[in-house]
Amino acid sequence: MSSKKIILDEKDLPKQWYNIQADLPEPLEPPYNTRAGRPATPEDLEAIFPKEIIKQEMSSERYIDIPEPVREAYKIWRPSPLVRATNLEKFLDTPAKIYFKNEGVSPSGSHKSNSAIAQAFYNKEEGVKRIATETGAGQWGSALAMACQKFGIECVVYMVKVSFEQKPYRKSLMQVYGAQVFSSPSSQTETGRKVLTEDPDNQGSLGLAISEAIEDVLNNKNSKYSLGSVLNHVAMHQTIIGLEAKKQLEIAGDYPDIVIACLGGGSNFSGTAFPFIMDKLQGKQPNLKAIAAEPSACPKLSKGVLAYDYGDSSGFTPALKMYTLGHTFMPGGIHAGGLRYHGASPLVSALVKHNLVDPVTVKQREAFEAAVTFARTEGILPAPESAHAIRVAIQEALKAKEEGKSKTILFNLSGNGYFDLSAYDNYLSGSMVDYEYPSEKVCEALTHLPKI
Amino acid sequence: MSSKKIILDEKDLPKQWYNIQADLPEPLEPPYNTRAGRPATPEDLEAIFPKEIIKQEMSSERYIDIPEPVREAYKIWRPSPLVRATNLEKFLDTPAKIYFKNEGVSPSGSHKSNSAIAQAFYNKEEGVKRIATETGAGQWGSALAMACQKFGIECVVYMVKVSFEQKPYRKSLMQVYGAQVFSSPSSQTETGRKVLTEDPDNQGSLGLAISEAIEDVLNNKNSKYSLGSVLNHVAMHQTIIGLEAKKQLEIAGDYPDIVIACLGGGSNFSGTAFPFIMDKLQGKQPNLKAIAAEPSACPKLSKGVLAYDYGDSSGFTPALKMYTLGHTFMPGGIHAGGLRYHGASPLVSALVKHNLVDPVTVKQREAFEAAVTFARTEGILPAPESAHAIRVAIQEALKAKEEGKSKTILFNLSGNGYFDLSAYDNYLSGSMVDYEYPSEKVCEALTHLPKI
Repeated sequence: MSSKKIILDEKDLPKQWYNIQADLPEPLEPPYNTRAGRPATPEDLEAIFPKEIIKQEMSSERYIDIPEPVREAYKIWRPSPLVRATNLEKFLDTPAKIYFKNEGVSPSGSHKSNSAIAQAFYNKEEGVKRIATETGAGQWGSALAMACQKFGIECVVYMVKVSFEQKPYRKSLMQVYGAQVFSSPSSQTETGRKVLTEDPDNQGSLGLAISEAIEDVLNNKNSKYSLGSVLNHVAMHQTIIGLEAKKQLEIAGDYPDIVIACLGGGSNFSGTAFPFIMDKLQGKQPNLKAIAAEPSACPKLSKGVLAYDYGDSSGFTPALKMYTLGHTFMPGGIHAGGLRYHGASPLVSALVKHNLVDPVTVKQREAFEAAVTFARTEGILPAPESAHAIRVAIQEALKAKEEGKSKTILFNLSGNGYFDLSAYDNYLSGSMVDYEYPSEKVCEALTHLPKI
Repeated sequence: MSSKKIILDEKDLPKQWYNIQADLPEPLEPPYNTRAGRPATPEDLEAIFPKEIIKQEMSSERYIDIPEPVREAYKIWRPSPLVRATNLEKFLDTPAKIYFKNEGVSPSGSHKSNSAIAQAFYNKEEGVKRIATETGAGQWGSALAMACQKFGIECVVYMVKVSFEQKPYRKSLMQVYGAQVFSSPSSQTETGRKVLTEDPDNQGSLGLAISEAIEDVLNNKNSKYSLGSVLNHVAMHQTIIGLEAKKQLEIAGDYPDIVIACLGGGSNFSGTAFPFIMDKLQGKQPNLKAIAAEPSACPKLSKGVLAYDYGDSSGFTPALKMYTLGHTFMPGGIHAGGLRYHGASPLVSALVKHNLVDPVTVKQREAFEAAVTFARTEGILPAPESAHAIRVAIQEALKAKEEGKSKTILFNLSGNGYFDLSAYDNYLSGSMVDYEYPSEKVCEALTHLPKI
């Protein structure tokens, strides 16, 4: 009987992350300090990030060593399984082979822990006592809370008020891991107090929570800030996903024709696809197709522009060169909260510009239809974000069937859906709606890009 | 660097379950048909169970083959990891080695899937089209829903009303897996309608839900009933846990001095401990200690009597010889819903009678204190049921420290706690209360035992 899962030994856990900056067709354009009117320098970032993180952010070394304490902490759940979706294949009656990497087995429930552990470690090494961050739906906050507990660092999370109230259990999970969680806008910061005075019922936003976390860090000794996606170092930490998957596929004697992951800020997509795109950039796999599955409601790669824009909606961060819908764009309220970000990581944006990554949009109901099919065939409940990747994998498998070709498809199951069952209820009851990006014309938010 | 997890290959997945009936000091006393006034026969059970299940229930063969389709379905999550709790050991500063088997990685979130898959398979083999069952907190219902979907059988779950309303997400998970879920008392059965007429606000009970499920099966063609604990065949299916753990400990060059699992109906405890108790029964490991961790609120082994009693609170099932607090006993509302059962499986009861298993009681707050310690050291969020086993493991590790002895401790982490975060909230906020078994005197429910 054939293998269902391909499991690596702990000793085969990769010893280095892959840094795609070494292989890009042209160097990345640097972040821009709009207040100073010049490109941002490493010194600009030192107030909020530890030095090693800034070094990684700017590095063009191809491989960067994973510190042993980080590898040791990864072993709580890593190496994660690579699974052959045999039951889904049978259900689709496709000649395609479908593999998925299961990142939902991490204790925080998603791939976010891969970077959280690394970031907590580097902060600890540099004597940081306290990390502040923001979280929307709570996956990043849970991952960082767990990582900080691991390395004995205080963790403070500003959680967007609407999620704080609607998703209380993610907050509880962070608290079990010992984190302090504030509903944002909070009375902890000047920014928060100002908003609350003007509008006591303000529901918060990710941009506002970022502003609160950064203000908190600037006003507290021995504190640093931490970000869960978008930036180069985060993307690099996530490459552990694709590097493991490559080894596992090698054991299976396979190599993917198509690699698929969903795209929010870009860390999950980067982590899954970059180790394979490396082979394409190095000329070894010219036919590899990498697909970023983004929600129709927030299609930055498909309908955005490539421009300098802020990482947060208030314009506190340096500006980054990325595909964006404008930092003031508010997407419709899809359940896949992790995909509701206005921009795409500069690294992914650069690859899209060079046609090395294909964006595909997925409607909310299509994603949930795929998720239910997946749960009923493979038995595992996917996160709504991951469901976008599943949808595209199914489409590609059906295309292979039509063409009578045996393609090998790999997608990342970036998280489990245990915290998203109200969204499944919404789908199964037939009351789920689709949100579209407001028309083909340039969205109003794009007129607010910073002038650089 | 040493291994954190010991992972088996899929090819090392056990090929047989272990049936402890082969090794008992004396044969089990048979179930008793109180209506007929005689021991129950296999024929008595055929109305509700498939023949192969009845055969297994009565069998004294030491090993029973696991059918290939069941092994194949197990591979979705099995073999499960055996983890060395190095961080917990360090935190406790104990010379003891603590291992745990992680059954929380199953897609339904607990060990319950081990028997659900097997039961769904045997029903399918005998042409059953539809299985009805009851569920309290929802772990068994989720497991059976997933298993029925796997083998193409309709699944109907009667879920105790109070849980149906308070734990809507477990219900949603069952529905994602395609099950029909009714709040019990329901209008689907005579029993349910009668209760609803007399008391429209009745909150339901496990006993009532069992009655509804059995009535449903008797009134529907091609339908059978399925039970998630207590019975011999369920305990046997769960031995996959201990059999895997034995192989994994062998790889680590270890054997436990102490094996610990929590005890509700007994299937989790049986599955974990029986393969080790076998060695004790066969004289190979005379010093092995097996501890059943039960809640102070429902201490059937510690404070119950060994007598014939019904499996359900209404007295519909055959009577079983077991340690019981009386089938009408209603324990306090502890969050570990899976441990609120009045009796202990006849197999575990027989072992307790012969001093082969030691019961230990754990208070609710002690269990949650242990759970939070575990989450903060090992990173994994335990189910409240499993937290009882963790508490005892910690106690034994501290005892080893006091005695300066290097003991090897194994416990089963039977489920994850993603659906139990409101209980953690309750603990962290300081408002959790302990429930005790009502005094040392014989509880009133014990006066209602059937006269046999």
